[in-house]
Amino acid sequence: MSDKVTSLNQHLAPIFDLQAAAAVLSWDQQVNMPEQGTEARSNQLATLTSMAHELFTSDETRKLLEAAESEVANLDYGGDAASTVRVIRRSFDKETKIPTTLVERETRAASQGFVAWRKARETDTFATFEPHLQELIDLQVERAGHLGYTEHPYDALLDQYEPDMTTAQVEALFGELKEGLVPLVREIAAQPEVNDDFLSLTYDDQKQWDFTLLLLRDIGYDFKRGRQDRAPHPFTTEFSSADVRVTTRIHPGAPQSAIFSSVHEGGHALYEQGSPEAFDRTALAGGATLGLHESQSRLWENQVARSLPFWYHYYPILQAFFPDQLSSISLTTFHHAINKVQPSLIRVEADEVTYNLHIFVRFELEKALVTGELKVADVPDAWNARYEEYLGITPPNDALGCLQDIHWSHGMVGYFPTYTLGNLISAQLYEQALAGMPDLEENYTQGEFEPLLSWLRDRIHKHGRKFTAPELLEREFNTQISAQPLLTYLRKKYSELYKL
Amino acid sequence: MSDKVTSLNQHLAPIFDLQAAAAVLSWDQQVNMPEQGTEARSNQLATLTSMAHELFTSDETRKLLEAAESEVANLDYGGDAASTVRVIRRSFDKETKIPTTLVERETRAASQGFVAWRKARETDTFATFEPHLQELIDLQVERAGHLGYTEHPYDALLDQYEPDMTTAQVEALFGELKEGLVPLVREIAAQPEVNDDFLSLTYDDQKQWDFTLLLLRDIGYDFKRGRQDRAPHPFTTEFSSADVRVTTRIHPGAPQSAIFSSVHEGGHALYEQGSPEAFDRTALAGGATLGLHESQSRLWENQVARSLPFWYHYYPILQAFFPDQLSSISLTTFHHAINKVQPSLIRVEADEVTYNLHIFVRFELEKALVTGELKVADVPDAWNARYEEYLGITPPNDALGCLQDIHWSHGMVGYFPTYTLGNLISAQLYEQALAGMPDLEENYTQGEFEPLLSWLRDRIHKHGRKFTAPELLEREFNTQISAQPLLTYLRKKYSELYKL
Repeated sequence: MSDKVTSLNQHLAPIFDLQAAAAVLSWDQQVNMPEQGTEARSNQLATLTSMAHELFTSDETRKLLEAAESEVANLDYGGDAASTVRVIRRSFDKETKIPTTLVERETRAASQGFVAWRKARETDTFATFEPHLQELIDLQVERAGHLGYTEHPYDALLDQYEPDMTTAQVEALFGELKEGLVPLVREIAAQPEVNDDFLSLTYDDQKQWDFTLLLLRDIGYDFKRGRQDRAPHPFTTEFSSADVRVTTRIHPGAPQSAIFSSVHEGGHALYEQGSPEAFDRTALAGGATLGLHESQSRLWENQVARSLPFWYHYYPILQAFFPDQLSSISLTTFHHAINKVQPSLIRVEADEVTYNLHIFVRFELEKALVTGELKVADVPDAWNARYEEYLGITPPNDALGCLQDIHWSHGMVGYFPTYTLGNLISAQLYEQALAGMPDLEENYTQGEFEPLLSWLRDRIHKHGRKFTAPELLEREFNTQISAQPLLTYLRKKYSELYKL
Repeated sequence: MSDKVTSLNQHLAPIFDLQAAAAVLSWDQQVNMPEQGTEARSNQLATLTSMAHELFTSDETRKLLEAAESEVANLDYGGDAASTVRVIRRSFDKETKIPTTLVERETRAASQGFVAWRKARETDTFATFEPHLQELIDLQVERAGHLGYTEHPYDALLDQYEPDMTTAQVEALFGELKEGLVPLVREIAAQPEVNDDFLSLTYDDQKQWDFTLLLLRDIGYDFKRGRQDRAPHPFTTEFSSADVRVTTRIHPGAPQSAIFSSVHEGGHALYEQGSPEAFDRTALAGGATLGLHESQSRLWENQVARSLPFWYHYYPILQAFFPDQLSSISLTTFHHAINKVQPSLIRVEADEVTYNLHIFVRFELEKALVTGELKVADVPDAWNARYEEYLGITPPNDALGCLQDIHWSHGMVGYFPTYTLGNLISAQLYEQALAGMPDLEENYTQGEFEPLLSWLRDRIHKHGRKFTAPELLEREFNTQISAQPLLTYLRKKYSELYKL
C-alpha cells in the first residue's frame, strides 16, 4: 500500500473504532440494556456518531484523501489501495454534502417520528403519525437536493443504500419481476391449501435455541468470532471481522421463525466474517451494499435452508428434538409447510413468492411521496389499493397496513428496494454457483456447506466493500442485475411443490 | 447552577459519554465477547480512552475551568456548582501533570506486563514477571514524581485512588488494626474447627443464580436500571445512574461464592444507582473514592449478609432451594460455616477477620518497592516472610504467593490499601446506622432493607463524587477514619461465634 493511502488509513482507523463502539452500544441496547438505560444511551450514541462524523468530514481527511488520490490515479480500482481511496471518496462526498443542521433536524424528526409512529401503530391512528411523516419526507426531499440527482429525486436517496442503481433501473427490474410473480401467485392460490397446523404446536424454547446453534455451526458461522443472542427484531452486527454477532427470536408456537431468522442472520454474518482480516479498521472492511448483504442472507435462508436436500439431513434431527410434535409428520409435509405460499398483510412474515409484492407497494409509494404526486394524507388509501391489486387482500386497518414498518419513522426512504434487489442477486449468485458445482446440493443432504461457503468467500466476501452490486456482478460474472434467475428459480420450485 | 459551570458541564458531557462508552465495551469484553474479538476491542478502547483524555486535558477545558472557578470562589464546596468545579480541578491537575509519553509507556508496559504475569502465574516462575515488574514499578516512581508529594512517593500513588489520605495516616490505621487482629486470629485458631463440609456438595447452577437474583431484588437493587450477568472475576460497572450492572460467578461446589459476590457487587451497585439523576453526565456522578465504594460493598456483604438476623429470613428460603444439601443442617451450623475464620493463602477467598492481613503485606511491600528499600528480585522472600508472620502460613510457591493478584501487572500501585480502608469505613458507617436505628437488624429477619438503604442514600449516596472519604466522614458524622469500630465489630461477632 502506498504511503499516502497508509496515512489516510491511519487517520481513519480511530473513526472506524468510534463507529464500532457505537455498534457495540447499539447491540447492547437491543440485547441487554435495562429499560431505563435509554436516555443515557442516546446521549452516548449521539456523541460517538457526531465525533465520528466531525472527524471524517474534517479538512484533515480532505487533504489526506486528495494526496492519496493523486497517488493511485493510474491504478485499477480493483486493487486495495485504489479501492480504499475510491470508497472513502464516495462516503466523504456524501457526508460533506449534507449540512450539519440538516442532520440535526433529521435526528430530531426521527426521534419524535419514531415515538409518534409507535403510538400510531398501537392505537391504529394514522393521523398521529401523519404530520411527522410529512416532515420526514420533506427532510428527505431536502436531503436529495443536497446529494444531487439528474433524473429523479429518489435516485439520490436510493444511492445511499444501493450505490450505482437508479430508480429507472429498479423500475425496469421490478416491472419484469411483477409480471412473472402475479400469475404465479394466482396459480398457487388456485391449489388446495397446505397443511401447516403442526407448526402451531408448542415447541420448547431451549430446544429451538439449541437447534439454531447447530444450524449456525454447520453452515460455517464461527463462534470464536461471534455469538448468538435474542432480540425482538433479529439483526446482525459487527465490530470487526473477528466479532460478528447474530440475534434471533423464538416463538414457542412457530419454530420456523427462529430457524429462518438464525439462518438469515447467519448469512449476513458469514459475509462479515468473510471480510479479509487485512481490511479491519479500513474503509474496505465488511459487506458492500445493502442489496449484496441481503443476497447473502436470502441465499442461505431460501435457496439453502428452504430446500428439500437441506431437510433430508436436518428434518430427522429436528424430529429428534421434537418427537411429540413431528414424528408423525412426513418430510414432504414439513417441507411444503415451511414453503407455504399465502398472500398476507405483513412483509416480514411473507413467503418467498409474495415477499417482493410487499416491496413493490413501498417502492411505488416512496417515489410518489418524494415527487409530491402522492400526498401523505393519501398514503393509507394508496397502500390499501395496491395491496388489493397485488396481493388480493385489503388491510383491515393501518396498523396492519401502512404503519407496519419502522423504516419511515426513522426517515429511511430508498431502503426498501434493496430487499428485493437482494432477492434478485441471491438467485443470480445461486444460479452461478450451481452452474459451477452441479452437485452442490448433494452436500446439503450431509449437512455439508463448505463448498458453497468457499465459493461465496472467493467470489463475494473477499472483496469486502470494494465494489457496488453492479460492479461486482460485472467483474465476477460478466452480468448485470436481472429478474429472470429469481423468476426461474421460483417457477421451478413452486411448480414442483404445488404441482402446477 | 451558574452560567460558567453550566458551560463547563456542557463541554465535559461528551467526554463522560466517551468514558461510559468505554465502560460498555469493557463490560462486554468481560461478559460477552467472543474469544477472537480481543484485538479489535483493544483498539476501540484505546481510541475512546485517548480521545477522552485529549479532550479533557485540552486548553478549552482549562479556560472553562478557570472561568468557572472565578465564579464559585466564594461558595461552600459542598454545593453542586462549587463541588463540580473542585472535583474537575482535582482530575484536571492530575491528568495534565502526567506527560502523554509516560501514559503511552505505562500502557505498553502494562499490556506486556499482564501477559508476562499471566504466564508467570501459570508456570509458577516469578523470574518471567520480574523484569516487567521492575519496569512497572519504575514507571510508577516516575509517575509519583510528576504528581508530586511532600513526604513519601507512595503518597502520590495512593492519592490517585484515595484522595486526601496519606501513607502516614494509613500506616497508623493499619498498625492499630494489626494490633487488634493478630491476637483475635490467634484466639480463634485455638478453637475447634468449624464444620463446613456441606458447602462442598453440588449446588445446582440455575438455582444458585435464581437465589442471587432474589437477594439483589430484596436489598433494593433496581433491575429496571441494571442487570446481573456472569463473569470470571465479578465486578460492577455503570454507564449512568440508570444503567448499573453487576456480575457474579457460580461454583457448583461453593454456593457462598455466588451469594456473597452478588451481594458485594450489589452494594457497589446500590451506591451507583443512588447517585442523583441530576449528576448524570457530570463530574459529580457516581461513587466517590475507592475506599468509600468498598465500604458500601463490604457493608452489604459482611455486616448485613453474613449476619445472623439476615439468615433468620433467608436460610429457610435457601433450604427450600436446596433441600437435599441443607435440610439437615441447622441455621447455627450454616451461619458459622459462612463465617469460618481460617488463615489462607489467597486474598480474594479470605474471611472477614484475616482479609486485612493480606492487605498489610501488599501495602508494606509496595511502599518499600517505590522507595527502593525492597528490590524486585526479593519480593517473593519478603512476601513469604510476612505471610508467615501475619497469617502463620508460608505459600508453597509464588503462584499462590506474590503472583496471585492482577494489580501490579496493570501498574496499579497504591490501590490495595483502599480495600482495608473500605472495611474500616463500612464498620464506622454501620456503627452510626445502628446508633440511629437500634432496631435496624430486626428488619433483616423480615427480608426488609429499606431503612438501611434509605439511610445510606441520605448520608452517602446522595453526595455522589463530591467529597473524599475524610471529608464525608467529617461532614456527615463529625469523625475521622478509624480502626476501632471494625475491631469492636469483629471482636464482638467472633467472640460469640467462637465462644472466645
